[in-house]
Amino acid sequence: MATVGILGGGQLARMLALAGIPMGLRFAVLDPAEDACAGHCAPLQVGAYDDAAALAAFAARIDVATFDFENVPSASAELLAGRVPVHPGALALATAQDRLAEKTLFRELGIPVPEFAAVDTRESLDDAVARVGVPAVLKTRRLGYDGKGQFRIRSLDEVEAAWQALGAQASTVGLILEAFVPFERELSVVAVRGRDGEFRTWPLTRNWHVDGVLSASLAPAACDPTVAGQAHAYARLLAERLDYVGVFALELFSRGGKLLANEMAPRVHNSGHWTIEGAETSQFENHLRAVLGLPLGDTAARGVSCMLNWIGEMPPAGPVLAQPGGHWHDYGKQSRAGRKVGHATLRADDAQALARALRAAGEGLGRQAQVAPVLDALGAADG
Amino acid sequence: MATVGILGGGQLARMLALAGIPMGLRFAVLDPAEDACAGHCAPLQVGAYDDAAALAAFAARIDVATFDFENVPSASAELLAGRVPVHPGALALATAQDRLAEKTLFRELGIPVPEFAAVDTRESLDDAVARVGVPAVLKTRRLGYDGKGQFRIRSLDEVEAAWQALGAQASTVGLILEAFVPFERELSVVAVRGRDGEFRTWPLTRNWHVDGVLSASLAPAACDPTVAGQAHAYARLLAERLDYVGVFALELFSRGGKLLANEMAPRVHNSGHWTIEGAETSQFENHLRAVLGLPLGDTAARGVSCMLNWIGEMPPAGPVLAQPGGHWHDYGKQSRAGRKVGHATLRADDAQALARALRAAGEGLGRQAQVAPVLDALGAADG
Repeated sequence: MATVGILGGGQLARMLALAGIPMGLRFAVLDPAEDACAGHCAPLQVGAYDDAAALAAFAARIDVATFDFENVPSASAELLAGRVPVHPGALALATAQDRLAEKTLFRELGIPVPEFAAVDTRESLDDAVARVGVPAVLKTRRLGYDGKGQFRIRSLDEVEAAWQALGAQASTVGLILEAFVPFERELSVVAVRGRDGEFRTWPLTRNWHVDGVLSASLAPAACDPTVAGQAHAYARLLAERLDYVGVFALELFSRGGKLLANEMAPRVHNSGHWTIEGAETSQFENHLRAVLGLPLGDTAARGVSCMLNWIGEMPPAGPVLAQPGGHWHDYGKQSRAGRKVGHATLRADDAQALARALRAAGEGLGRQAQVAPVLDALGAADG
Repeated sequence: MATVGILGGGQLARMLALAGIPMGLRFAVLDPAEDACAGHCAPLQVGAYDDAAALAAFAARIDVATFDFENVPSASAELLAGRVPVHPGALALATAQDRLAEKTLFRELGIPVPEFAAVDTRESLDDAVARVGVPAVLKTRRLGYDGKGQFRIRSLDEVEAAWQALGAQASTVGLILEAFVPFERELSVVAVRGRDGEFRTWPLTRNWHVDGVLSASLAPAACDPTVAGQAHAYARLLAERLDYVGVFALELFSRGGKLLANEMAPRVHNSGHWTIEGAETSQFENHLRAVLGLPLGDTAARGVSCMLNWIGEMPPAGPVLAQPGGHWHDYGKQSRAGRKVGHATLRADDAQALARALRAAGEGLGRQAQVAPVLDALGAADG
């Protein structure tokens, strides 16, 4: 059986390995950290992502390479690609690593995006503000994630502060100004494309962020079939243009029944964790099936699921495990402020049963605030 | 988080670890074989089960001990129990290790069993045959599994041949003669009992054996609710008498709407593998929840599932993975005649959809004979 190499040994690599080991796959993980949590279930090679000798040794142990994060140095991806198949490929990585390239591609493909403009200098920031308007968000083009490397400009007198905060990065990772979208809902579509071009999406997921970090997901998101169809079509356009192989997520804003694309993540995604218990085939298993050229699995949802992220430290498991359809994920990481250390998924056959379990779990954990927006959405689904 | 020690590093230990790692559990496995397949996802200590020093070192690394096979030497279980909690406990192991003790307990609890008699000598075999009748099966009291250590006596002139085959073991592991039950169906109930006495069963499973080894399982088995209730009640009686903690399986014969108990397995069981994809909580996860004193998970089935065992060598995965609801399990073992090397589970929302997927998979694999009895049963369910 094949050995899959994963660059990056965090929880995504860990969940990939946990999905693949049952199928008889072997894994190897490369990560600079000795305590990378994927190392609990897969052989961990400790090494820097840009260490050519480490990468060569890694390539020699594996049959195919993939990633648990999008900011893989392109030289490293190329070095691996010279030795083993690498999925997703260079074009997808390069596009997803650069917000400007990504937004430009979205626009080219006819996927609606918020207004945006490149920012290279203090002057071009003024030009960008004039074009995009305020409120807007100044972001680094590269290496941003979970709300890091972003500055929200609420009014014109905050432009200078934004430049002070991020201007130094204009000449390194680059900057982009994006119109702030007063969205009604944040959605994501998690998609998979096989080596043979077969393309599938899981049902749309609705997401709630706190301080830029995913807090809760609900799937399938209650929405107009036309909207769901659009999300599927956008993801497909993107996958085909990038000749994408594997799982990716496309984050979307919804407003007045219209979708705007925010960004894509060229990997399994936090908003797809519910698929482990809530779909016939998980995003992790289908990513592996795709990169290995196996038939893709059914992406249909089984009932309704809510995923709750645990940030910083793990709460007690009991209140979740006591619910029917309560499932617990502890990544085995040390506690640290802002760190994703685990998640829970509550699955039920219908919205009412999910709301009951979610309310009880929220109360048991003293996390009513985290579950409240999901309960609201489930209540709205009832009406 | 707790470290769970598993004596035995086969596929059951492997699937226990794969169910527990997502929850943040750590594992340690003790097995005499360097290539024990649980070693792919959990630290493996190579050592004999009766090596006191190895057991002591093992006990020092773990918080709780459990088993992936029932024939753990009782001295080893006692040694561990002196250092860490051990589930299931000594009484359950001792009972399940001895067919005579087991059958005697069933009878005591009012659980119907086929006629049986202990056999110590050639003369007592004749007495036993006179009492039990023929056809009957002469079995070793201990250390038998998957049809090993059994001799079927079809008529009186085969009694001597049975003695020739197994008589030498009368004074070592002991023998028992059991009436051969011309059953209509083989069923099993997989059950779990928590530390606090909470008791749950998964829906009844129907099983088909070939040459004494499980070939296919179908769950939930179509059956009269009274029969299902009886199976649940028998399992509960047994669990409570043994003060059982963890998962066990009770194998049953069904004939004319009546159940007869065959044997119990004090561990997760091959006939419960379908619960990984086909139930809200798998037997593996619930076994861990039980031994750790966590709340038990919902044992409800999700749709209808068929498990197919792969014996000797793995077939190609494609024909199963191409089916909606097709899931693949490869234990990563070397091929060997008679060895359980993997299984597949096909899950669907109803019997018709399952039959379609099963027929297609069986044809794709050239294993029409293996799926035929399950298709018959699903067809009967339609009518």
